[in-house]
Amino acid sequence: MANIAVLGYGTVGSGVYEVIKRNQAIVSRNAGEEVNIKRVLDLRDFPGDPVEEVLTHDFNDILNDEDISVVVEVMGGVEPAYTFVKGCLEAGKSVCTSNKALVAAKGPELIRIAREKDINFFFEASVGGGIPIIRALNLCLTADDIEEISGILNGTTNYMMTKMADEGWEFEEALKTAQDLGYAERNPEADIDGWDACRKIAILTSLYTGKNTDYEKVYTEGITKISAKDIKYAKELGLRIKLIAESQKTEEGLVAMVAPIMLKKSHPLYNVDDVLNAVYVRGNVLGPAMFFGSGAGKLPTASAVVSDVIAAVKNKSNVMVEWDDEDLELSSVGSVKRSFFVRVSGSEAEKLPGIRELFGEVSTVTAPGVTGEFGFVTGIMSEKEFNKGYDKLDGAITRIRVDNREEL
Amino acid sequence: MANIAVLGYGTVGSGVYEVIKRNQAIVSRNAGEEVNIKRVLDLRDFPGDPVEEVLTHDFNDILNDEDISVVVEVMGGVEPAYTFVKGCLEAGKSVCTSNKALVAAKGPELIRIAREKDINFFFEASVGGGIPIIRALNLCLTADDIEEISGILNGTTNYMMTKMADEGWEFEEALKTAQDLGYAERNPEADIDGWDACRKIAILTSLYTGKNTDYEKVYTEGITKISAKDIKYAKELGLRIKLIAESQKTEEGLVAMVAPIMLKKSHPLYNVDDVLNAVYVRGNVLGPAMFFGSGAGKLPTASAVVSDVIAAVKNKSNVMVEWDDEDLELSSVGSVKRSFFVRVSGSEAEKLPGIRELFGEVSTVTAPGVTGEFGFVTGIMSEKEFNKGYDKLDGAITRIRVDNREEL
Repeated sequence: MANIAVLGYGTVGSGVYEVIKRNQAIVSRNAGEEVNIKRVLDLRDFPGDPVEEVLTHDFNDILNDEDISVVVEVMGGVEPAYTFVKGCLEAGKSVCTSNKALVAAKGPELIRIAREKDINFFFEASVGGGIPIIRALNLCLTADDIEEISGILNGTTNYMMTKMADEGWEFEEALKTAQDLGYAERNPEADIDGWDACRKIAILTSLYTGKNTDYEKVYTEGITKISAKDIKYAKELGLRIKLIAESQKTEEGLVAMVAPIMLKKSHPLYNVDDVLNAVYVRGNVLGPAMFFGSGAGKLPTASAVVSDVIAAVKNKSNVMVEWDDEDLELSSVGSVKRSFFVRVSGSEAEKLPGIRELFGEVSTVTAPGVTGEFGFVTGIMSEKEFNKGYDKLDGAITRIRVDNREEL
Repeated sequence: MANIAVLGYGTVGSGVYEVIKRNQAIVSRNAGEEVNIKRVLDLRDFPGDPVEEVLTHDFNDILNDEDISVVVEVMGGVEPAYTFVKGCLEAGKSVCTSNKALVAAKGPELIRIAREKDINFFFEASVGGGIPIIRALNLCLTADDIEEISGILNGTTNYMMTKMADEGWEFEEALKTAQDLGYAERNPEADIDGWDACRKIAILTSLYTGKNTDYEKVYTEGITKISAKDIKYAKELGLRIKLIAESQKTEEGLVAMVAPIMLKKSHPLYNVDDVLNAVYVRGNVLGPAMFFGSGAGKLPTASAVVSDVIAAVKNKSNVMVEWDDEDLELSSVGSVKRSFFVRVSGSEAEKLPGIRELFGEVSTVTAPGVTGEFGFVTGIMSEKEFNKGYDKLDGAITRIRVDNREEL
C-alpha cells in the first residue's frame, strides 16, 4: 500500500480526493498497489466532509510521517508551496503538483533535488490540465527535433475569445460573464494579460530544449486590446483570433511568445473553442501532431495529478527529466516571419499608396458597420521589418499577428 | 552505447535508419547513451546505400549477437516476424515493433515473455503511426475509467472518404487515386474492408481494459458500400462520413466495432481529413481528449518506433503493460444507441406513414440530382431496435450509422 498526502483541499485538491476514491480499483491496478490518502493539509475545517478523518492543519504531520511516500501539492502560488515541496523532496518523498507558478519559478531546482534523492517531481497538470502534454514531450516525442509548439493554454481567455467571436460581445462583457461563471478570478490579470499562458509555454519550452526558460523573458501580450471591431474584421477575413502561446525555432534562434493571433480555418487550433485547451507540436520527423482536451476544471486537472501519483508510486527510482539550471537564450520576436493585420483610420483611396510604400502589396478589408477606417493584411515578413513600417504608419489604430502559413 | 538491430529495410525500416542518423544527438541524449545501429536484416541487397555496412541476410547474426540489446521489427505480417520477435525476447533482447498484425495476433504472449525476461516489448507505432496513443493509454490516462475510444485509424480510407466528400468522386475513383499515390496497396482489402482499423481498435481496447480483445470478434464493416449518392445526402444533412473504429462501454457491456459513421460538425473527428489519423478518448474524470497527427508514412511511423527504442534503452527493466491472455467478452453491437440514416426507394408521400410505424418520428432529406428515392434519419435507438424496423422496410437501399449525440 502506498500512502499519500494532499497539500490543499481547494478545487483541485478535493478533485484529487474524489478521483482516487471514485476510481480506487483502476488507480490501484495501474499503480501496482493500493493508493491510500493518509493526510490532507488545509488551514480550513470541513465539518461533515469525509476528508475530516484525514485532515490536518500542521504540515509537519505530513513531513515527518515516514509512511507517506508521495505528496500532492495543489495549493497554488510560489509560497508556501515551494518551502513545503522542497521539504518533502529533501525528506525523500516524491511530489506531484499542478502548480504552474511553482514549476515555472523553481522547476530546475526541484527536478535536481528529486534526481539527487532518486525520487520524482512530476507536474503533468501544470500545463494543459487534463491533456497529457508533459509526458508526451518527456516520453513520447523523444525521437524528434521539436521545431514548434503552439498552444491554446488558457481556458478563460479562450472562452472569452470564443464568445466575442460567436456572440459579438465586447471584451468587458466577455470578461464579466467569465467571472460570473467562475472561469475568471476577480483579479483576472494573470489570464487576460497572458501571464498564465506565458508560464505554461515557458515550462513546455524548458522541457523540449532541456534548458531553463525564464518566463519573465517570454514576450507576452494579453487580449485586453482586442475589441468587437477587431473580431468583425477577422470574420470578414475568415479568421479567428486566439490567444496563442508559442515557441518556435527561427533562423535566428528560439523564440517564445504569447499574443493574440489570427488563425485561418485550416489551422489545427482554429476550431478549439470555449474553455478547451490544445497543443500543436511539430517535430522534424513526426510532422504535425495535436493534443486536445479539458485544459482546466476540477476533475480533468485532478485526473492529470492522479496519473502523476500513479507514476510516482510505480517508479520507485528517478525518471529522468531534462531541464537544466542553465538559462535558455531566447531570440527576439522580431525574427518571426508572418503576416500582420492592421486597422488604419481614413479611406483606402487616401491611405493605400502610402501603405504600399511601407509594406509592399497588401490586401484590404472593410467590416460591416465599421466606418472611418479600414483594415489590411500584409504579406509574410519578419516582425522587425513590419514594425519599421508600422511605426511610420499615419493613423494606425491597432495591429494583430496573422498565422497564414501554407504548411502547418 | 546501446547497439540495436533492425529487422526489415522497407519503408519503415529505412525510416528508422534515417531518423536515428539524422537526430543522432537528440536520440542519444533522450536515451541516456549513444544509440548505434549495429545490424539491419533484409533478404535484399542495397548496393551503394550506406546500410550496406551493417546489412545481413542471416537473422542469426542478430539473435546470437550479445552486444545487441534492442531489436526493431518492421517487416510486417505475422510470420516470420513472430518467430523472430519471440526468439529475440527469449534471448533477452527488448523488441520494438510497428507491426499491428503481429501485436493484434500475439500481443499478450509477447508481453508476457518480456515481463518474464524483465525486458520490454513496445509497439507504439502499431496504432496511429506517429500519434503517441499507446503511451497515452499506458502512462498518461491511468487515473480514468475509459468510457469510449473512437478513432480514425486508417489513413488510406480516410483519404478516400475525404476525396469522395470534397470532390464528389465515386468509390472506385477514390481507390484508384489512393493506389496511384501509394497510399493503398494493390490488394487494398485490409484497408477498405476495415481489417486494418479493426486490428488497431482491438489493440487499444486490450490496453485500456487489460484483457485480450480478439480482433476477429470485433464487428467490422468497411467502406466499400459507400457511394457518391450517400455522400450527397450526408452533405445535405451537414454530416461527414468517416470510417470509425470505436470501443465503448454500453449498459450491456463493452462493444468494439469498425464501420462508416456519419459525424456532425461538432464531433472532434469531423475535421480530420486526408491521410491524418486521430483518436478521441473519453474518461470518466478527464472528460474528452483527442490526439491527432500523421497516422502513417515513413518518417512519422519511424518517429514512433525510435521513441520506443529510446524507451527500451532507458528502461533496463520491464515497464509493466496490462494486457492479459484472458479474453475480453464483447457485447453485441445491437446494444449501441444512436441514430440511423436510411435511403429508401419511392416517394415520401407513399412511404412515410409506414416508416413512422417502424421507426417513430424521423426527419427526411433529399439530395440534389438523386431521384426515385429519399432519405431519412431516425431518432436515437439501439441498433437492435433499428434492425427490427429496417428488416421490414420495403424498398430499403442502404443504411449508415449517425453519431449525433449531444454530449461528446
